[in-house]
Amino acid sequence: MKRIIVKLGQRSYPIIIGYKIFSRIGPALKSIRIGRDAIIITNNFLKRKLGVTLKRNLEKTGFTVKFEVVPDSEKSKSTLEVFKLVNDIGKYDIKRRIFIIALGGGVVGDLAGFVAAIYKRGISYIQVPTTFLAQIDSAIGGKTAVDLSVGKNLVGAFYQPRMVFTDPALLATLDRRQVRSGMAEAIKYGVIADSKLFEFIEKNHKAILGLNRKVLEFVVYRCSLIKSKVVSLDEKEQRGIRTILNYGHTVGHALETVGGYEKYNHGEAVGLGMIAAARISGELNLIDKKSCQRIEHVIADAGLPTSAKKINKFRLMSVLYRDKKFVKGLTRFVLPVKIGKVVVREDIPLSVIDKAISSIVKK
Amino acid sequence: MKRIIVKLGQRSYPIIIGYKIFSRIGPALKSIRIGRDAIIITNNFLKRKLGVTLKRNLEKTGFTVKFEVVPDSEKSKSTLEVFKLVNDIGKYDIKRRIFIIALGGGVVGDLAGFVAAIYKRGISYIQVPTTFLAQIDSAIGGKTAVDLSVGKNLVGAFYQPRMVFTDPALLATLDRRQVRSGMAEAIKYGVIADSKLFEFIEKNHKAILGLNRKVLEFVVYRCSLIKSKVVSLDEKEQRGIRTILNYGHTVGHALETVGGYEKYNHGEAVGLGMIAAARISGELNLIDKKSCQRIEHVIADAGLPTSAKKINKFRLMSVLYRDKKFVKGLTRFVLPVKIGKVVVREDIPLSVIDKAISSIVKK
Repeated sequence: MKRIIVKLGQRSYPIIIGYKIFSRIGPALKSIRIGRDAIIITNNFLKRKLGVTLKRNLEKTGFTVKFEVVPDSEKSKSTLEVFKLVNDIGKYDIKRRIFIIALGGGVVGDLAGFVAAIYKRGISYIQVPTTFLAQIDSAIGGKTAVDLSVGKNLVGAFYQPRMVFTDPALLATLDRRQVRSGMAEAIKYGVIADSKLFEFIEKNHKAILGLNRKVLEFVVYRCSLIKSKVVSLDEKEQRGIRTILNYGHTVGHALETVGGYEKYNHGEAVGLGMIAAARISGELNLIDKKSCQRIEHVIADAGLPTSAKKINKFRLMSVLYRDKKFVKGLTRFVLPVKIGKVVVREDIPLSVIDKAISSIVKK
Repeated sequence: MKRIIVKLGQRSYPIIIGYKIFSRIGPALKSIRIGRDAIIITNNFLKRKLGVTLKRNLEKTGFTVKFEVVPDSEKSKSTLEVFKLVNDIGKYDIKRRIFIIALGGGVVGDLAGFVAAIYKRGISYIQVPTTFLAQIDSAIGGKTAVDLSVGKNLVGAFYQPRMVFTDPALLATLDRRQVRSGMAEAIKYGVIADSKLFEFIEKNHKAILGLNRKVLEFVVYRCSLIKSKVVSLDEKEQRGIRTILNYGHTVGHALETVGGYEKYNHGEAVGLGMIAAARISGELNLIDKKSCQRIEHVIADAGLPTSAKKINKFRLMSVLYRDKKFVKGLTRFVLPVKIGKVVVREDIPLSVIDKAISSIVKK
């Protein structure tokens, strides 16, 4: 069992990582004095697969447990779902010492974290990420949000959990496509901050896809460490440090939008975005050809798409220009300069962006 | 024109107070570089009375202006209204540099502040309070919230404005009952922290009700100063300091609830709550009889009720026990020990509370 502290002064909290530690969550919660009455926000699939066991474990340790089941899709990241949840919780919360457990992937984590942020101006919550992507990325760092019809994550808060409880054994609940999606974010960490991690993924991509215990533990730990360091330095994305986590996300988000959040999942879109950003970097002579190719190869090895089919380039460009990352009309990109290092640039000629986009949507 | 700084490190902001400064709001906003596109959240009455002028002034200074009109009642402090507003703003916000102006009393301020807190994880907003109560209390300090059906202010955030722009001349838009309601909070500041202010209100209660310029300026400034100091010391009500602002509010909130938010407005309920708390304090020999009577007299002089008619005592007691201020089942009261000083107590015998409640609901 390993422990990483996300250092944020009074709001610091531990990420606890360990294979098959799921049953030990009760005592861990007890030790941080989080309350007595747990509300588990999850979806139906995970309630059956993991929730029932979690409930039994918590009750054994003296907690009470109530489930709030939300739909298993991005659709549950809605303001409507938020208001349903806070109303439910309000009715339930009489003389209780409640806290929230987000049991699920990024959708559940973002939604549950936001509910915790605004109910009574903030109550305690913990993250129990069940997807690869959530374990190494979304469950850490307190970015919570839900979507509006006009755009993703437009309503939210920075609100840190009290603990992240990460069991890589839970990834056995995932299908292959979800594992691949998580690999995209793992590759991202390698490119932005950790050449050793990048090499490890190059060598062990098959073992990761096979959910090999040792390999998974290493990757989850290493990624969590990078994420927690970045968050500690720039919690609210005001110092330009947290921005590096957006490598691949500028084009990635636009691809998700144009694909209606169905054609490409988050990791697939980010994979394509990373390729686009690497090509922009290559075009500007910021990175050598070989590094650029290594990035593309490892994305291909992970079984992620390397070109976007049936995506309208012009729609993609127009969505790009609505992205939050386009500050003051400037096109902000995170660009790799070598494996393990990126820069943030806002002065990229439109022609260069256009060329990179064209290269990934062709065919 | 006077200036008070609410000191909160990076989140510090000025309260600008001046009679008939309303027209100077444009340049003041320009000076803090708040954005370009203002969204004024207000009600229909205030849009006609003040909004149209405000719009013209802002446009002259180079801002664009869009109105969001909300119903003129506590009912607009709903999650549904929040949902409507964020969706509207999301659709409007394309390549804009938006910020929010809360033009109104406590309801508009709480709602607009919460919308600003959660849209894009927080955008800039300023408070332009138009009621006595909002000018001296709710517009300062960043407590934002909306109601749930089961209770008031259950969904919200601590989120500070970038500026509070206070023009006591705007109080001319109020009816007498609203002015009296504000006086209750002014009296509260006197009791909790400022015996000079208390004496001033004793002597000048008629001039306050008559909206005398000099008298109003003094009271608004003095109250704002106390509020800002308390907020600076304990922004998120975690250090037990901000708690003193709840003098009169424990019983006050319960009275509002039992009266369905119609029988008593906030100030009237707080006035009755202050009397109840003073009597509890008297019963416990924490305050002398004369001070206790002075509190009751000044509340009566302000034209506020001193006893609650047709209120069911037992319903009141049961609502009291649901209040957020009842931490861990303990009855937390703010009790005056002399004019200008209060203590927070959680160990009050139920019989003493019962006696004080009985004394205000009798007849």
